[in-house]
Amino acid sequence: MDNGSRIEFTLEQALVGAARDCPPKLAAALRYAVFPGGARLRPKLSLAVAWACGEDDQAIVNGAAAAVELLHCASLVHDDLPCFDNADSRRGKMSLHRAFGEQIAVLSGDALIVLAFDTLALGAHKHPTRLAPLSIIVSRATGAPGGLCAGQAWECEDQIDLSRYHRAKTGALFAAATMAGAAAAGVAHEPWRALGEYVGEAYQVADDIRDVAGNPETMGKPVGRDEALARPSACRELGLRGAVTRLNDLVDLAVESIPACTRAAELRALIRHQASHFLPADIAQAAA
Amino acid sequence: MDNGSRIEFTLEQALVGAARDCPPKLAAALRYAVFPGGARLRPKLSLAVAWACGEDDQAIVNGAAAAVELLHCASLVHDDLPCFDNADSRRGKMSLHRAFGEQIAVLSGDALIVLAFDTLALGAHKHPTRLAPLSIIVSRATGAPGGLCAGQAWECEDQIDLSRYHRAKTGALFAAATMAGAAAAGVAHEPWRALGEYVGEAYQVADDIRDVAGNPETMGKPVGRDEALARPSACRELGLRGAVTRLNDLVDLAVESIPACTRAAELRALIRHQASHFLPADIAQAAA
Repeated sequence: MDNGSRIEFTLEQALVGAARDCPPKLAAALRYAVFPGGARLRPKLSLAVAWACGEDDQAIVNGAAAAVELLHCASLVHDDLPCFDNADSRRGKMSLHRAFGEQIAVLSGDALIVLAFDTLALGAHKHPTRLAPLSIIVSRATGAPGGLCAGQAWECEDQIDLSRYHRAKTGALFAAATMAGAAAAGVAHEPWRALGEYVGEAYQVADDIRDVAGNPETMGKPVGRDEALARPSACRELGLRGAVTRLNDLVDLAVESIPACTRAAELRALIRHQASHFLPADIAQAAA
Repeated sequence: MDNGSRIEFTLEQALVGAARDCPPKLAAALRYAVFPGGARLRPKLSLAVAWACGEDDQAIVNGAAAAVELLHCASLVHDDLPCFDNADSRRGKMSLHRAFGEQIAVLSGDALIVLAFDTLALGAHKHPTRLAPLSIIVSRATGAPGGLCAGQAWECEDQIDLSRYHRAKTGALFAAATMAGAAAAGVAHEPWRALGEYVGEAYQVADDIRDVAGNPETMGKPVGRDEALARPSACRELGLRGAVTRLNDLVDLAVESIPACTRAAELRALIRHQASHFLPADIAQAAA
């Protein structure tokens, strides 16, 4: 099974388990939040790192990768809520609260967070001693003080700590993706933090660029939101061309940070390949 | 340390960890959601069961008990949101979204869910093989298809399955409390489900009674909400006196369900004692 299929299959299994005897609207909403997916960048990163580290058990790696993706999906559902971005669309369709109502949107986000930890624990049955570090990697990337929730909460402060904000809002879950890949493969995870943080920051810069220069039709979500919501953005800080340079520098840093492992050369190539899709071809060319 | 102090101490440790370098409003809100607590019934139940089973490691039991309480606190914060109960007060003070705003309330609930799994994993360091069953017990009690989120989601359906609704909305987390106590003590947890479910149902009936006959001043939250929101209620179904009879029957069933264990007699007495506080004295006497 290729990496994309491993991820979809594991997510599918998790969703089927969650849907059995579930209130029908909640079950439908959970599926709506997860399928069809976006690029699945984070779980692909987990799988790539685990593979590069010589994974010995696909089940625990799949569980870790799916957990990271479920947490990402949860964060999108809650970030789109009326009290935050009040987004009408996401991934080319109506945002979840527009399709199912605000109550189901709050509950879906909650249930996806919980499902992530459930999926993680189920995957770890052959290697129970790897579960505690995996759980902690994933929880630290999601909650307070430095995870996704904290990142979003910086937007509620009068004084925003920009570097903490970006690290928490985007970097943390990418770092969890690489660290969880290593931990699931039974390898020390801390050396893999930098790779995730650099890739996450690169992705954030690319996202800022797309928000300025992207086409809402092909992206499946509106553009110009950072400006409209006065959110911090690499383009506002560095200009469009400066942001593209920063993106390329971050990809170099990511690749150079890869620790010694069984398949380091292959992983370096893979990271460059994945990052080359961060910007749609037309923007990448226009800004080059 | 007595059981109450063990719970407060473990919750305090979890909150201190979550607050370090956290956005200040989120950190304050997390503390606001957890302290001062209510009766801490669920974690006390976890500690009582673990003790009755002959616990061999307080850290893992404390972690499990605190996780259950953090999930309970998270559910209160989200249930109070404007899109659900739109409650102004909780535990004798402003509801969290009234005090901190809706954004921080959504994020606090999310972060408390995550903190629960973090606390569980941290507590399990001496007994890593107990973590997977504990995680799964706790996730099933919280998410879809049969946990708290599912219980709340039944309220969004036109056709409500009442028995599943109650089991999910209240029973599930009480059952998780007893099962987690057993699992944390290294004992088979499934036989402990019934105790939690009966205690949970008794608590739900008592809550319905308090909503009809209680005093909002002493309870710290408004009464008459079930009627106002047309929610299912034991009092609407059985009348006040019928509901009190049902409550007493459920406590008997709970006590009789206790599996063979080191301190079964003590646990039976403890459960009766705890349940005797489910109703304020004035209501219990008036309805007797």
